[in-house]
Amino acid sequence: MAVKVAIDCMGGDHGVHVTVPAALSMLKEDPAVSFLLVGRQDAIERELRRAGQVAGPRLKVVHASEVVEMDEAVAAAMRGKKDSSMRVAINLVGGGEAAACVSAGNTGALMAISRFVLKMLPGIDRPAIATLLPTLKGHTYVLDLGANVNCEPEHLLQFGIMCSELVRSVEGKPRPTVGLLNIGAEESKGNEQVKRASELMRGSGLNFHGYVEGDDIYKGTTDIVVCDGFVGNVALKTSEGLVQMLGTYLRQEFGRNLITKLAGLVALPVISAFKRRVDHRRYNGASLLGLRGIVIKSHGSADAFAFAFAIRRAVQEARSGVLAHITERMAVIHQSAT
Amino acid sequence: MAVKVAIDCMGGDHGVHVTVPAALSMLKEDPAVSFLLVGRQDAIERELRRAGQVAGPRLKVVHASEVVEMDEAVAAAMRGKKDSSMRVAINLVGGGEAAACVSAGNTGALMAISRFVLKMLPGIDRPAIATLLPTLKGHTYVLDLGANVNCEPEHLLQFGIMCSELVRSVEGKPRPTVGLLNIGAEESKGNEQVKRASELMRGSGLNFHGYVEGDDIYKGTTDIVVCDGFVGNVALKTSEGLVQMLGTYLRQEFGRNLITKLAGLVALPVISAFKRRVDHRRYNGASLLGLRGIVIKSHGSADAFAFAFAIRRAVQEARSGVLAHITERMAVIHQSAT
Repeated sequence: MAVKVAIDCMGGDHGVHVTVPAALSMLKEDPAVSFLLVGRQDAIERELRRAGQVAGPRLKVVHASEVVEMDEAVAAAMRGKKDSSMRVAINLVGGGEAAACVSAGNTGALMAISRFVLKMLPGIDRPAIATLLPTLKGHTYVLDLGANVNCEPEHLLQFGIMCSELVRSVEGKPRPTVGLLNIGAEESKGNEQVKRASELMRGSGLNFHGYVEGDDIYKGTTDIVVCDGFVGNVALKTSEGLVQMLGTYLRQEFGRNLITKLAGLVALPVISAFKRRVDHRRYNGASLLGLRGIVIKSHGSADAFAFAFAIRRAVQEARSGVLAHITERMAVIHQSAT
Repeated sequence: MAVKVAIDCMGGDHGVHVTVPAALSMLKEDPAVSFLLVGRQDAIERELRRAGQVAGPRLKVVHASEVVEMDEAVAAAMRGKKDSSMRVAINLVGGGEAAACVSAGNTGALMAISRFVLKMLPGIDRPAIATLLPTLKGHTYVLDLGANVNCEPEHLLQFGIMCSELVRSVEGKPRPTVGLLNIGAEESKGNEQVKRASELMRGSGLNFHGYVEGDDIYKGTTDIVVCDGFVGNVALKTSEGLVQMLGTYLRQEFGRNLITKLAGLVALPVISAFKRRVDHRRYNGASLLGLRGIVIKSHGSADAFAFAFAIRRAVQEARSGVLAHITERMAVIHQSAT
């Protein structure tokens, strides 16, 4: 299925040097994909020339004169930069010229502009950020990761419904399991927010597993783990910090002396295979769920290899019909409630 | 300094088979330590005989006829089991016969009974669970880890004060740094709870670093990380799950075929050194802070090696005078506020 994706080429720590090569690699990989490269025309064209490429039917440059900075205040990016590459890329989705957009820019600005331009799907109050994490069994979707610091139980229910439709659409699992993140599996555990959300999920038609705990994320106990944005963000960042620490420790131990360095050489293929399996770049690309359009957020520090995964996710979601599925599901729920 | 510690010998997944050998090893290690071994006399004495030991001046058995089960409801443990090993051990601290107690039993029951028997220190509203975690720089104390699912900003402040006094007393750091866990370092980030807690901490005389994020825990950005019990519990359990997953992956990669197994043999000393550094057993022993007595919670699945670390922590805290230091500090704050 042909899919056109708008790329915010200026976003992220490395801008065009990462986004353009990633798009070019995807162009080769997937013959049904085409791109709208959004950003400063000269910068994008210079990058294309460097790769020996020119614009064509599958690769169009859309000029945008401004750039949202990574640390820019959301309000300034929203009101002051109407011609930012981020805004123009989202506009292309809003206008139907692109089926999805990908940005490695400022998360807060991306969320605010997407919400302003695209609006929410019917029945959804707030967007949520969902990402894939590796688990013992494969992978698990976790949301929200920081879009909502204060969530009502109804929002958590909506997150569960949206992500169920996402997993169903993208992975073809008919009834993905949903876990609600809590500090114990017993019914008595947790705060009022999760207790009430648990009741709502139980009566919602979701394939609700019940409460899960932090370790269930990486055990892969459920296909989906739902939590509020504060908790989800802390869980994700804590994981990142832990992996960095373990990586540093491992390098230090292998670098200790000549003997450990030799052992490291012998073990290198195994360690490399291990690292490939947990390479966070393969999980790059978080979905901004709940909008009337597909918006994928790449990690700001992504390299071209990682950014290509975010593009792949955008293409996958565009082909999956996830937006229609969420809309249908919410309509059914709305009907049965009235 | 002579210290007498009460051990709940029946608590945890392995009871006397872990608690008694751990106490015996500590008896050899620290000649100024003595123990009150609390639990079923026959079971404890059988375990002592197995180790070729008998009770003596430094090793007394205190009979308790009941056991709090790991999954028992807190109310049942509190009201129905007045002669549980857990309750009797805490009573020994309350009565001044022991300077501290250690239990690997049911966390909820330990917290409730400790609070009921020992009461809170003046000026402290709620107890918090604090533990050490390894970091790139050494270690960091994190609290609360699950005692309080709903915290007021004042409680977070009290956690910061209590833990500062703990670190000062036990580690001799005069002004430990305190970070408040949030989903961004900027002042505008977070929910109302952390924003208000940040204001309180800023005006409290604490060595307040400001907001920290999940990855700062393992970076070791601050000596102490304060958060509510829901968030802290999720961060800790997520970390446990991640470490388990990475360990499984690493074993799988080294076990793949003959060549990787040989590489594993060569790398074994390095991998072992790495595992020693992140061995969670060395971090076993969480402090129940805020009580008029020292209570240390061991992980339920601890082995004797891990349980000995929890005992060591109890001894350390008993010698540190931490309870007097928290009391003095709260009195100063109370005075300056009136």
